[in-house]
Amino acid sequence: MQTLRVALSDRAYPVHVGAGLLQQPRLLLDTLSKPRATIVTNETVLPLYAHSVAAALQGAGVKVVTAVLPDGEEYKTAKSLDLIWETMLRARCDRQTTVIAIGGGVVGDLAGFAAATYMRGVPYVQVPTTLLAQVDSSVGGKTAINHPLGKNMIGAFYQPVSVIADIATLSSLPERELRAGLAEVIKHGLILDREFFVWLEANIERLLAREPEALTHAVSRSIAIKAGVVAIDERETGPRALLNLGHTFGHAIEAGLGFGTWLHGEAVGTGMIMAADLSCRLGRIGANDLQRVRALIAKTGLPLQGPNLGTDRYLELMSLDKKVADGRIRLVLLDEIGRAAIAESTPPEALRASLEHNVSDSTSTAATN
Amino acid sequence: MQTLRVALSDRAYPVHVGAGLLQQPRLLLDTLSKPRATIVTNETVLPLYAHSVAAALQGAGVKVVTAVLPDGEEYKTAKSLDLIWETMLRARCDRQTTVIAIGGGVVGDLAGFAAATYMRGVPYVQVPTTLLAQVDSSVGGKTAINHPLGKNMIGAFYQPVSVIADIATLSSLPERELRAGLAEVIKHGLILDREFFVWLEANIERLLAREPEALTHAVSRSIAIKAGVVAIDERETGPRALLNLGHTFGHAIEAGLGFGTWLHGEAVGTGMIMAADLSCRLGRIGANDLQRVRALIAKTGLPLQGPNLGTDRYLELMSLDKKVADGRIRLVLLDEIGRAAIAESTPPEALRASLEHNVSDSTSTAATN
Repeated sequence: MQTLRVALSDRAYPVHVGAGLLQQPRLLLDTLSKPRATIVTNETVLPLYAHSVAAALQGAGVKVVTAVLPDGEEYKTAKSLDLIWETMLRARCDRQTTVIAIGGGVVGDLAGFAAATYMRGVPYVQVPTTLLAQVDSSVGGKTAINHPLGKNMIGAFYQPVSVIADIATLSSLPERELRAGLAEVIKHGLILDREFFVWLEANIERLLAREPEALTHAVSRSIAIKAGVVAIDERETGPRALLNLGHTFGHAIEAGLGFGTWLHGEAVGTGMIMAADLSCRLGRIGANDLQRVRALIAKTGLPLQGPNLGTDRYLELMSLDKKVADGRIRLVLLDEIGRAAIAESTPPEALRASLEHNVSDSTSTAATN
Repeated sequence: MQTLRVALSDRAYPVHVGAGLLQQPRLLLDTLSKPRATIVTNETVLPLYAHSVAAALQGAGVKVVTAVLPDGEEYKTAKSLDLIWETMLRARCDRQTTVIAIGGGVVGDLAGFAAATYMRGVPYVQVPTTLLAQVDSSVGGKTAINHPLGKNMIGAFYQPVSVIADIATLSSLPERELRAGLAEVIKHGLILDREFFVWLEANIERLLAREPEALTHAVSRSIAIKAGVVAIDERETGPRALLNLGHTFGHAIEAGLGFGTWLHGEAVGTGMIMAADLSCRLGRIGANDLQRVRALIAKTGLPLQGPNLGTDRYLELMSLDKKVADGRIRLVLLDEIGRAAIAESTPPEALRASLEHNVSDSTSTAATN
């Protein structure tokens, strides 16, 4: 087991990474301030992991109640949030009850926001069971729900008391979700760690084959990069925005097709190609670097082209993104592999060209994998 | 104008108190980080104050959108919260948009929670226009909505960037709301400032006659007391709980009758009598002090007896309160006038007796004033 720390100004929390951590209930028990917990999970993860965690906690004398959500991004809504609140209120959970999120990013974001707002805040622990959640959403304290008018528009910055990333849970992950999670892993290399990107180019097949050693390295390295950024900019007023490489494009894809049609990681993968293409058009990176980005994403089996929503629609959806300031679309662009920067404005012709050159010819809306 | 400061560990904010402050748009303009604002108000306050504030801001070049809620505690709901979110999303408000709450406690709590959660947090300013909001809810950063299963159960600790309390707005306040606001003023004296309580005994008629000088003193002194408590315990892990004198009883009254039947301040007034009665039964204060509490609340014209919900129902409702820990009802009790303490547990017989002796004989549910 590796333990990293996310260091924040007024508090810090541990992130444990390793295979078989859910077999060690002590890790979880040690985080509870009182023997009361609310497990938040979904219908898929409940029989796989949440049932046994609940049983282990109950065996140790913890009073546990479980809120089970339907599985899918389309349920990351105010209604699901209310289901968690109501479960906790009916069970008379108090302010010392710890919320334990067991599942992927949707479960983590919802459970974290519920914990942030239940009685104005109770402790919560993230137990991410997807690659995407392990390398991205479980660390950093961003919680949110989607609103019909925009993805992740409603939420809070609220940090967990600990994160337990059990690599063994990735064995049950559908192939498509594994690939989608790798998009965020690649992103961490692209924005801040050239050496890690090179390692990924050499080891992508081992990751796709789910070799535990390779996965542990990829998850730990990703979390270390993200934790470093979060530590210097918890509320995304500066460098944390680098973590959004590919995300403004990606959010347009997700919103344009309706949330849940493409996986978040798939949209981010294609969004990173669009961002790299735009970086190349603007002379920030060379054609060779663009080709390396495209090649690694292709090897990962992620879609290389966005759906054909129409360029105007893309721009409209991108302008609704939270990262917009004063009506200007701020994009994360590459200056080289391993170094990204925030562009306060972008020449509209280049942006249009990057969008037009990276969408499929057909108007089909399905992900290509 | 008096300016107090709420000093918190990582930030501080000013509270301006005086008559005619809304005639000085500079006060508000100086708080905006960008010339964009969302005004949150209700149907009653809109024509009285919010229209003119919006016009003044627009005249100074600020882009303003307004969310108008129905008037009443029964609208402090998730639905009203969504109305604010939707207004902001449709107007494409960004992360630098300041939310300005103009109204009473319901408007302030809702607007504050909307600001805390819109794009994970935007700045907000409180412009309280009721006595209750000026002396209590606008300072301290507690934001919330009610849930069908409990009052203020969902919310966040989120501090405003400034508070502007214009005493002139109290001229339009209905008599009943003025009296209800005075309950919280009395509370501040009771828990922490014997001298202020004595001043209130001598000046209650001047306050009921709305003398600006007396009101300015009462509001400033209340805010100073509250700000002092919040500064040492922002998240209510310790002494801040003293501000809840009368509130656990009061919440039971409000929830038992349905939110909105009694005003919050009315319920707190009766709740303080119950708490004082219990303090007397437990030998913490003498019968003379209990009588002084009752006499001042009587002079204020607040109800002296709670509705006859039945003692078991009171206890059930009180056990749902957020301040409950490990299933025990923690009450704020008096050790003398001007000094309160938190009782971790209370003899059940004494609690039952205090409830039984301070409810009306009839089962009528109307406030007595």
